[in-house]
Amino acid sequence: MRIGIYPGSFDPVTLGHYDIIVRSSHLVDKLIIGVLNNSAKNPVFSIEERVELIKKVTKDLENVEVLSFEGLLVDFCKQMNANVIIRGLRAVSDFEYELQIAQANHKLNRDVETIFLATSTHYPFVSSSVVKEIARYGADISRFAPECIVDDIYKKFK
Amino acid sequence: MRIGIYPGSFDPVTLGHYDIIVRSSHLVDKLIIGVLNNSAKNPVFSIEERVELIKKVTKDLENVEVLSFEGLLVDFCKQMNANVIIRGLRAVSDFEYELQIAQANHKLNRDVETIFLATSTHYPFVSSSVVKEIARYGADISRFAPECIVDDIYKKFK
Amino acid sequence: MRIGIYPGSFDPVTLGHYDIIVRSSHLVDKLIIGVLNNSAKNPVFSIEERVELIKKVTKDLENVEVLSFEGLLVDFCKQMNANVIIRGLRAVSDFEYELQIAQANHKLNRDVETIFLATSTHYPFVSSSVVKEIARYGADISRFAPECIVDDIYKKFK
Amino acid sequence: MRIGIYPGSFDPVTLGHYDIIVRSSHLVDKLIIGVLNNSAKNPVFSIEERVELIKKVTKDLENVEVLSFEGLLVDFCKQMNANVIIRGLRAVSDFEYELQIAQANHKLNRDVETIFLATSTHYPFVSSSVVKEIARYGADISRFAPECIVDDIYKKFK
Amino acid sequence: MRIGIYPGSFDPVTLGHYDIIVRSSHLVDKLIIGVLNNSAKNPVFSIEERVELIKKVTKDLENVEVLSFEGLLVDFCKQMNANVIIRGLRAVSDFEYELQIAQANHKLNRDVETIFLATSTHYPFVSSSVVKEIARYGADISRFAPECIVDDIYKKFK
Amino acid sequence: MRIGIYPGSFDPVTLGHYDIIVRSSHLVDKLIIGVLNNSAKNPVFSIEERVELIKKVTKDLENVEVLSFEGLLVDFCKQMNANVIIRGLRAVSDFEYELQIAQANHKLNRDVETIFLATSTHYPFVSSSVVKEIARYGADISRFAPECIVDDIYKKFK
Repeated sequence: MRIGIYPGSFDPVTLGHYDIIVRSSHLVDKLIIGVLNNSAKNPVFSIEERVELIKKVTKDLENVEVLSFEGLLVDFCKQMNANVIIRGLRAVSDFEYELQIAQANHKLNRDVETIFLATSTHYPFVSSSVVKEIARYGADISRFAPECIVDDIYKKFK
Repeated sequence: MRIGIYPGSFDPVTLGHYDIIVRSSHLVDKLIIGVLNNSAKNPVFSIEERVELIKKVTKDLENVEVLSFEGLLVDFCKQMNANVIIRGLRAVSDFEYELQIAQANHKLNRDVETIFLATSTHYPFVSSSVVKEIARYGADISRFAPECIVDDIYKKFK
Repeated sequence: MRIGIYPGSFDPVTLGHYDIIVRSSHLVDKLIIGVLNNSAKNPVFSIEERVELIKKVTKDLENVEVLSFEGLLVDFCKQMNANVIIRGLRAVSDFEYELQIAQANHKLNRDVETIFLATSTHYPFVSSSVVKEIARYGADISRFAPECIVDDIYKKFK
Repeated sequence: MRIGIYPGSFDPVTLGHYDIIVRSSHLVDKLIIGVLNNSAKNPVFSIEERVELIKKVTKDLENVEVLSFEGLLVDFCKQMNANVIIRGLRAVSDFEYELQIAQANHKLNRDVETIFLATSTHYPFVSSSVVKEIARYGADISRFAPECIVDDIYKKFK
Repeated sequence: MRIGIYPGSFDPVTLGHYDIIVRSSHLVDKLIIGVLNNSAKNPVFSIEERVELIKKVTKDLENVEVLSFEGLLVDFCKQMNANVIIRGLRAVSDFEYELQIAQANHKLNRDVETIFLATSTHYPFVSSSVVKEIARYGADISRFAPECIVDDIYKKFK
Repeated sequence: MRIGIYPGSFDPVTLGHYDIIVRSSHLVDKLIIGVLNNSAKNPVFSIEERVELIKKVTKDLENVEVLSFEGLLVDFCKQMNANVIIRGLRAVSDFEYELQIAQANHKLNRDVETIFLATSTHYPFVSSSVVKEIARYGADISRFAPECIVDDIYKKFK
């Protein structure tokens, strides 16, 4: 059985993330969304909120599970018996950092392979930061965030 | 069943290609190495030779098949019932071109997903061109090409 | 009066080019599409054909003119009294080359400014080469080329 | 009438900024320098100081106005009836981020077009951070900052 | 006599740094490792600790000296009579920033030349941040940090 | 004794090349300009002409020698007892290719180190191709090529 992990901060989940989730759910038998609990990053949404938003967004995807994790990604993979890490690539600057992390993870655990998906051409510019910046000023985020969580995001900034 | 296609010119296959073949053979149930028969590119090795060299190199990998193809990659995928295209990423310049091709292929056939693997840190600089350049002057190619085809490559340049 | 030149090979014009043409036509008073007559490049479409295809595509844009030119772009600018050169940017590799050309042109003629537009997110992967490659095998090019010239392109490859 | 906005933090304005200001002032009928009032960024110069320094530097440019703004750039454009956003491109890393922002802004407001100018070859390495770093240690900033504000910058770091 | 300076934060020194130190020690008559004392960066290791770790790692390299410095790199070069600055290049994003700094330093002091070495293919992904992240969770850092300081690094995170 | 080789096609030598030659001549005891005799590349200037032009340009630099070579660069280094290869870096796309070549050369010969110099900010856009393109149309190349060979270049295109 191929188990994949799609790790990230998801602060909050965007349409770009959602696109990667749907597409990579076809590539593995089980897909785990791993939400990184990194207090140093000062996320706007709490770890519980970030997990809840993704659960809401993925509730119709049968082989998708949402979990939070702390520590090293390779340790989380071992614990979940995952053999595939999934990452979205948006831009060259993403690419280099991601490549370094993938190579470091491969050194730490040879049984895990990182695969990259190109983000859809519809969402090349969507990032959690952009969503938050736009929501902060009350502008329209419906082209950037999944419909079912748009109100949850606005609420946060009131 | 997940069927993957790893397409390329493979003129000739290198240690970098071999690394991607082994690693991606674990990600799909069946892996097809698709050798592009593009007469416009003036390959040094004929299409038959390129197929033979890869067969020699992959003879111990059970779920790997080697085939030549002409025309569009998405048409070859349909014909083979493949749902995954595999590409290795070595550098930023690869990345942008590959991204464009992946997105174009996705537009042409929504059922095929392209996944990228980072090349191993041991072979970042290995390319078919480098192998041919070194072999042309009789220098040592054993760090760049699979051992079992080193002599076949030298023979070509005598 | 601001006169802009959008130079290129346009072999053939794509939806990506068309998008840049429409958007840049709003930025200047008169927009000249300058089709480069460079015999060294072995274009598939003749210079007359390339000019005709763009005229067909831009016939409803009032401030747009289509002309062929030979020689240096800065000389063509002088001859046309143009003070703006327009270029589309699709990717990082484009960017560096374009930047060098823009800076060289600026050295040769201080009165001409090059401005860059980002290609639309709908056409990041569209290039004349991709259109020709797809048309060559009779596959669907309607998502890549302006509708009114799709048949002209197919005819070329029969 | 074409109204352009050149947005930024300008903490403080550099010779690189000044070069973009002069060149883009020829491309539009009126150019507004929009100084972003973003308290989260902890600028060294206050918003009033940054506006004053640019006013000093641009006092001889007739069609240039300097204003501070808060919130989203597209909202500021609407308020000013601006139809063009101007950005300088220095490097590849700038480019990708700028491209994403330009595409997001285009989604939010279809009436505004972002145009990019390549920074002059004389100032490829000049940034506000570099100016501040050098001024902090009392070294010579006259090659990096407009002459008329060099003393104002030194004063800040005493 | 050619005196080189290899500047950095070295928080802590990695196998990637060590590789650059050894290789560049052959290029100059005397190599000074300049450890930047920048309190604004909140290093995990104190300036004294960082100097000590590098001394331990380089104790067998005869023409290498380790010193801390504050202020501008070009001033430190002048003080040490150094005419060469050495920098390692790992990735494209490094490259652009480094290029800008090298050009700025060249403007400030024409007598100093910056030379770049490509990082070894064995350590492309090794950075001080990665070492600290892995050590923080008690995972194996022996492939990333020089053997003789592995225990010193672990101790810091207990 | 440190012997450096600055290899290239130099078809023809430009002001950008000349800048690298002068600066790297200070870094080594003897600098050899290695002009690659690669008939496959169809140079405009013959190998003898290219060597002559560089000799003319460097006649006042005492520790510089100009030689042509065929075959692999690492073999030429061995033959010349050179321990340093010098390359200029102009742009990101240069960088990746150069990095791969440097790493391949290092694998083939551990005794040779490649060092990179950033091209001067005055010549970021100067390449042999640009010089030839401009000279072909009789435009002014004096900002791009060393003064003493400007006439030699024009003569070639008459």
